[in-house]
Amino acid sequence: MKNIIIASTSTVHGSGYLEYILESLEVLYKNTDEIIFIPYARPSGISHNAYTDIAKKAFKTIGKSVKGLHEFKDPKAALKNAKGIFTGGGNTFVLVNQLYTNNLLKTISNVVKEGTPYLGTSAGSNICGLTMHTTNDMPIVYPPSFKTLGLVPFNINPHYLDPITNSKHMGETRETRIKEFHKFNTQPVIGLREGSWLEVKGSSITLKGNLKARIFEYNKTPYEIATNSNLELLNRL
Amino acid sequence: MKNIIIASTSTVHGSGYLEYILESLEVLYKNTDEIIFIPYARPSGISHNAYTDIAKKAFKTIGKSVKGLHEFKDPKAALKNAKGIFTGGGNTFVLVNQLYTNNLLKTISNVVKEGTPYLGTSAGSNICGLTMHTTNDMPIVYPPSFKTLGLVPFNINPHYLDPITNSKHMGETRETRIKEFHKFNTQPVIGLREGSWLEVKGSSITLKGNLKARIFEYNKTPYEIATNSNLELLNRL
Repeated sequence: MKNIIIASTSTVHGSGYLEYILESLEVLYKNTDEIIFIPYARPSGISHNAYTDIAKKAFKTIGKSVKGLHEFKDPKAALKNAKGIFTGGGNTFVLVNQLYTNNLLKTISNVVKEGTPYLGTSAGSNICGLTMHTTNDMPIVYPPSFKTLGLVPFNINPHYLDPITNSKHMGETRETRIKEFHKFNTQPVIGLREGSWLEVKGSSITLKGNLKARIFEYNKTPYEIATNSNLELLNRL
Repeated sequence: MKNIIIASTSTVHGSGYLEYILESLEVLYKNTDEIIFIPYARPSGISHNAYTDIAKKAFKTIGKSVKGLHEFKDPKAALKNAKGIFTGGGNTFVLVNQLYTNNLLKTISNVVKEGTPYLGTSAGSNICGLTMHTTNDMPIVYPPSFKTLGLVPFNINPHYLDPITNSKHMGETRETRIKEFHKFNTQPVIGLREGSWLEVKGSSITLKGNLKARIFEYNKTPYEIATNSNLELLNRL
């Protein structure tokens, strides 16, 4: 049974790394003290070691030990044996490229579908969707494909931002970008605002956190869903 | 001799399409009354026809006629015979994908290097750089490569945005994104603010418009250059 948290962000303003969501992580990982961290997204280009240290420090506060996937000689075997997995944020292109290079996407998808608890934040959440076509990141490397884990039947847009009223900047709003996406693709997109997350338990998908989420369906007017709403309806697509 | 305008944006706040730059366009296209418009970037997903109509209307005010590249049976021949080319903004992934599909990148690069006047705005400017790795757009389609025209020896970041003071949004700033780019790539990046453009005449590259531009070189602290500065120094790289 799937047991997944897909979080918009690792860190909300004025709070420490993962702090806002630690209570839910204790539940997610209740059956393990050991978590494998996938540091491939390298926020600001930091090293796998430096990034893993940040995850280690946060999980220590709830009594969990963390090991970076890069520390294993055989990362595929490590993921198959993992009791819990966490993929951190950073650059989705860098993350997906490294996952393809190491041939790990299928393995992660399989073990998470079989029940290994999984947490994704930001880029680590993007890859839970069908594709990474709705990432906000800059395409600083060229991955062999934009196809991702497909753990949910839609795409994720993390760090979802509402249009800024009276902005003089002429760049596209997030909503415009997602509308452009739907000129070329048909799957729904969930805009997850900062501090929101999706809780996936088996076939149940629930919005958590204090804020609403914005849903973009193909050929429909975008709409809001309230926290604690169920997103299974999107399974029909 | 190259004769190119690489503009951050087509439209500055409170002004009509291309209005702020029409005077320079009269100079750029002084030897032709006919311009071929490449509408492939499809802003907000609009059709090639609808987009071409917008360009037609703007150029009519300076007495130039515009024909969309999609109106030609043989787009490659059309570009070879063009007296002036304009590539509009929209989504860089969509633009580059269509240019590869129609096998046009080499042709555009050749004719522009030989002197066909070229205007790019936003996505149409991104492709003037060595690669599209520094676009701000959402990767809504998967192009066969991120390599672009290489008309200048660096990458462009159009719509360059300074960090917003006191923002509570935890997404990456533009500067952070470009720094991440330099963990994986070495070419310089020119952050062009709204209303700025580069004027390329032969080997001379000059910053125009009222604002400074921000230069990101590999392993160097980013720095500002004043309007009318020359960017040939970046040719050394």
